[in-house]
Amino acid sequence: MQYSLLEHIESPADLKSLSIEDLKALSGELRQYIISTLSSHPGHLASGLGVVELTVALHAVFNTPDDKLVWDVGHQAYAHKILTGRRNRFSTIRTYGGLSGFPKMTESEYDAFGTGHSSTSISAALGMATASKLQGNASRQHIAVIGDGSMTGGEAFEALNNAGVSKANILVILNDNGISIDKSVGGLSRYLTKVTASRRYNDLKNKVWDTLDGDEQNRSRGKEKGLNFFQKMAYSTKSALLGHQNNLFESLGFRYFGPIDGHNMEDLLEVLNKLRKLKGPKLLHIVTTKGKGLPAAEENPTVFHAPGKFDAETGERIKTTASNMPPKYQDVFGRTIIELAEKNPKIVGITPAMPTGCSLNMMMAEMPDRAFDVGIAEQHAVTFAAGLAAQGQLPFCNIYSSFMQRAYDQVIHDVALQNLDFVLCLDRGGLVGDDGPTHHGAFDMACLRLVPNLTIMAPMNEHELRNMMYTAQLPGKGPVVIRYPRGNGVLTDWHNEMLELPIGKGRMLKEGREVAIVSIGHIGNSAMEAAATLEADGISVGVYDMRFVKPLDTALLDQIAERYDRVITLEDGCLEGGFGSAVLEYYSAKGGKTPAVKRLGIPDRFITHGTIPQLQQECGIDTTSIIAAVKA
Amino acid sequence: MQYSLLEHIESPADLKSLSIEDLKALSGELRQYIISTLSSHPGHLASGLGVVELTVALHAVFNTPDDKLVWDVGHQAYAHKILTGRRNRFSTIRTYGGLSGFPKMTESEYDAFGTGHSSTSISAALGMATASKLQGNASRQHIAVIGDGSMTGGEAFEALNNAGVSKANILVILNDNGISIDKSVGGLSRYLTKVTASRRYNDLKNKVWDTLDGDEQNRSRGKEKGLNFFQKMAYSTKSALLGHQNNLFESLGFRYFGPIDGHNMEDLLEVLNKLRKLKGPKLLHIVTTKGKGLPAAEENPTVFHAPGKFDAETGERIKTTASNMPPKYQDVFGRTIIELAEKNPKIVGITPAMPTGCSLNMMMAEMPDRAFDVGIAEQHAVTFAAGLAAQGQLPFCNIYSSFMQRAYDQVIHDVALQNLDFVLCLDRGGLVGDDGPTHHGAFDMACLRLVPNLTIMAPMNEHELRNMMYTAQLPGKGPVVIRYPRGNGVLTDWHNEMLELPIGKGRMLKEGREVAIVSIGHIGNSAMEAAATLEADGISVGVYDMRFVKPLDTALLDQIAERYDRVITLEDGCLEGGFGSAVLEYYSAKGGKTPAVKRLGIPDRFITHGTIPQLQQECGIDTTSIIAAVKA
Repeated sequence: MQYSLLEHIESPADLKSLSIEDLKALSGELRQYIISTLSSHPGHLASGLGVVELTVALHAVFNTPDDKLVWDVGHQAYAHKILTGRRNRFSTIRTYGGLSGFPKMTESEYDAFGTGHSSTSISAALGMATASKLQGNASRQHIAVIGDGSMTGGEAFEALNNAGVSKANILVILNDNGISIDKSVGGLSRYLTKVTASRRYNDLKNKVWDTLDGDEQNRSRGKEKGLNFFQKMAYSTKSALLGHQNNLFESLGFRYFGPIDGHNMEDLLEVLNKLRKLKGPKLLHIVTTKGKGLPAAEENPTVFHAPGKFDAETGERIKTTASNMPPKYQDVFGRTIIELAEKNPKIVGITPAMPTGCSLNMMMAEMPDRAFDVGIAEQHAVTFAAGLAAQGQLPFCNIYSSFMQRAYDQVIHDVALQNLDFVLCLDRGGLVGDDGPTHHGAFDMACLRLVPNLTIMAPMNEHELRNMMYTAQLPGKGPVVIRYPRGNGVLTDWHNEMLELPIGKGRMLKEGREVAIVSIGHIGNSAMEAAATLEADGISVGVYDMRFVKPLDTALLDQIAERYDRVITLEDGCLEGGFGSAVLEYYSAKGGKTPAVKRLGIPDRFITHGTIPQLQQECGIDTTSIIAAVKA
Repeated sequence: MQYSLLEHIESPADLKSLSIEDLKALSGELRQYIISTLSSHPGHLASGLGVVELTVALHAVFNTPDDKLVWDVGHQAYAHKILTGRRNRFSTIRTYGGLSGFPKMTESEYDAFGTGHSSTSISAALGMATASKLQGNASRQHIAVIGDGSMTGGEAFEALNNAGVSKANILVILNDNGISIDKSVGGLSRYLTKVTASRRYNDLKNKVWDTLDGDEQNRSRGKEKGLNFFQKMAYSTKSALLGHQNNLFESLGFRYFGPIDGHNMEDLLEVLNKLRKLKGPKLLHIVTTKGKGLPAAEENPTVFHAPGKFDAETGERIKTTASNMPPKYQDVFGRTIIELAEKNPKIVGITPAMPTGCSLNMMMAEMPDRAFDVGIAEQHAVTFAAGLAAQGQLPFCNIYSSFMQRAYDQVIHDVALQNLDFVLCLDRGGLVGDDGPTHHGAFDMACLRLVPNLTIMAPMNEHELRNMMYTAQLPGKGPVVIRYPRGNGVLTDWHNEMLELPIGKGRMLKEGREVAIVSIGHIGNSAMEAAATLEADGISVGVYDMRFVKPLDTALLDQIAERYDRVITLEDGCLEGGFGSAVLEYYSAKGGKTPAVKRLGIPDRFITHGTIPQLQQECGIDTTSIIAAVKA
């Protein structure tokens, strides 16, 4: 395909002179460029395809980067990156040293605010709008583009509540496609569907536009009053019966516009041009199709959220993994919870909007009454699960490690303090690779081990994960955290008969003489590799898999202290306050003869994106680095 | 006053036989009992007075503890405690060994779920309701009583969104008094006011009740259909124009009832009796007066949120502090931010609903354009402030330490990762006393020091706080955390000329020979006291105030290592992963001759409520314990 328009767009300024027809054609090129590039350079596909027209229209109408544009989560910002001077680097997206998969302030002045986690955009845009007001800029617009899924995250509501009474120039664009990664769930999603389906409501739309024109004319004539023409009109047409606003967003103080077709360039340009001149908080509801333009992605947006390599023509996905690979930890979790739940009727599964990602979708299919997707709502997920636990069920609440940071208080306040029987499965623990710093599960072991009452485990392989899940659901274990990484395990024959693990007991994997590597979790496999290499070099290294971050196996640490003068702790987690520090704390409290301890883990800086091996090397926790540390 | 009814209420079962008149009279006695007791045994007063009738009605109508009752935050649960077997212990509330100031599962089977932090009740009740359904109990009701302030917390919205599409037997009682601790803010609050003021809407109420009766009759005749009579009625009367629900809560899938007068016993009994039989998610909006029954509290509910001792007749507060006491850290913060903001136009202040508690109310009064109460919304507060920072302002975002746990992800993801110039003031760091485990600021230093890019300071006195605030607002400091305790400082002459502190530099307070106490923050004053006592006993102790948790003053730690064989670290924060562990980490990495380190801090368990001296003793961080540790 030729990109005759796209190749001349170096910045949004180049859009200003294009006709509507050109903007439409550009959208087509842009969509094709994204599909073509991502087919061989994997990234987030379907979200971006859904907002191509919106992105073109926003940059054509608004004066970015002076007007501020915040992309919630940021999966959908690829078209934005291409139009804002990053077209030539686009194929580097999510690779080490390449473009980030998310908006990033240091990458471009057009990225007004970095994102990655959900539901922050309205807060950020309101903050910027408030700053602009303080700085005497009354005309700058501040735009948050947020999906209907992200809108369920509590922070978005907190921001709407605050923004609704402000006079800030904020425009929230609700990108309603009925999908987050999996299908959107909850009352809000159902409500938006009803709003969109309501003919009668749509009929009102034109009146709203007419009103808006009148409103602007009023303003231009300097006739602003306490209640402007638009407001009066809105009250009279829609709220006469009730005497107050009757749309959810209007209830909170926003002017609501829409819903309109988010793929119709004419409509988008018309409404955005009008809204650009309108002061105060306003929300535009657009309806889009996730995956738009690639039929396979439109049909299955969940799979095409981040499909890996695929055929750009047919959409057929290209398999890159061999069939005899060990399974993903995710799938072991997904199958094992069903196996356990079949025997233990107390078990229920909870995920905040990640059923496919964490594989709870398997249980949702087999046991729909006992597995819950609660929406993008980590805080609620934990307290909801705590409520289930308080009433005698045993929740397995599965949250990505970095998203658990959203529910930190609930883990402390609702789970640990009440000492509930509760299993918190932390998926994506440790470095996650190409999603980068917003998504690395770096902090979980360190920030959770200081919470009283928690038992914290991390499996080294699939059998260990299953044993830990089995152990956690036995009676009276209190709150248990099981933390495991993204991706594949190490055992093809993963389906062991599950065993109870004694709480707080680690294990020796290999005896040695000179140095002991004391590791936690999956990265212990690298320790074993390193030890084998070192053994071949004549260096005798012991390897210990501690299994538990908390409680620590102090008896095993005593044995290690007796046998070795040097200990290396190894974790795929942050060094500050982490697992290695727990070992230090124990040895410090123990006193007497204790070994010198060298800690390996994620250093005290945010780690970029790249492949996991690249990042492990950067952090000094790959096998080569472990070998070097032993030799040092 | 005689408590002729109240003294016979040993459990809610005793309410069942009372007439409406008796229940009214009982409410009067209960209110008087609370006022009388709290006048000499300080506690949370005004919230509880507002829900006396509601509490009596709930326990009279519902079958607690089988029906589940969750009090959001829990300040308002005093009447509940008195009616549920705790009348005789009520005067022990918030004292060491006495009743908790919040609902607590281990205290009573009537406390279905422990609370303390805001906005968890709907999630918890939904979890319980889901459990009941799984357990085959179709009739149990699950009630969340939540204030209009708490309803602005994002988790409440997440829960409404999830509950609205459930068929769970959940009853949310929205206790609308327009007040959280300070005045409620935001779009929701304004909306509720409009709803209540709307005559027309109230006119609909009777129709709703009639409908509800019809609905029940339909049900009793077994005529349930896809859309029941009530739903049809609701649609026809209120939604004909729009074709979808038009109340905010109905939008999300709740049946909405009200608003009704929450002090009218007849109305309460009538509606609760009806709602008790109604399946599915429903919300009852009641309007109450915070502080009801004590005129001084009705007039000034913010002051009477927790007024200390007062005259039970007049409401006059009894001053217990001498006039020459050192000021509260809070007031030093409140005055100093104004002083700084007068010179630095970039400075803005942000609080999530604690303007009086943290003293940002001073700036809100003097600089209303530059100080913001964003509602009970810690997550939004941080990202909103980050947006301000991204656009060139310098936010001082003040959050109680334990409430910051709610915004942990935002501190990591929006502030630290983007390395913004941002000042996070953590009030209530360390043990807070009578509010107990939900409110102790135990975890902040440990969970924040593992976050890259943060500079973390803790002042030992008022001058230090001011110097830290001054230093933090100088250009290019990046994200800074300043953590200080609840209550009074140590200097009456607090208003120093502010100085820049070099980042990462501690100070020697007193040279010694035998042991060094290395402390952080206000508790360094206890170290100085201990050292003086020990000096008198002939033991020479050095005392070092590190000022910075991060970056550590490694040069000073090197000097200490040279001079002393023994070091005691001292912090009013958790031991696991805390400040002391940072010292251990440094000495471990340094290698060579390093001192033996003993760490004093909050041990690895949740600490109960009581006075701060009692709790410090329990934790081994009071002066006596420090002396004993040095001698050991």
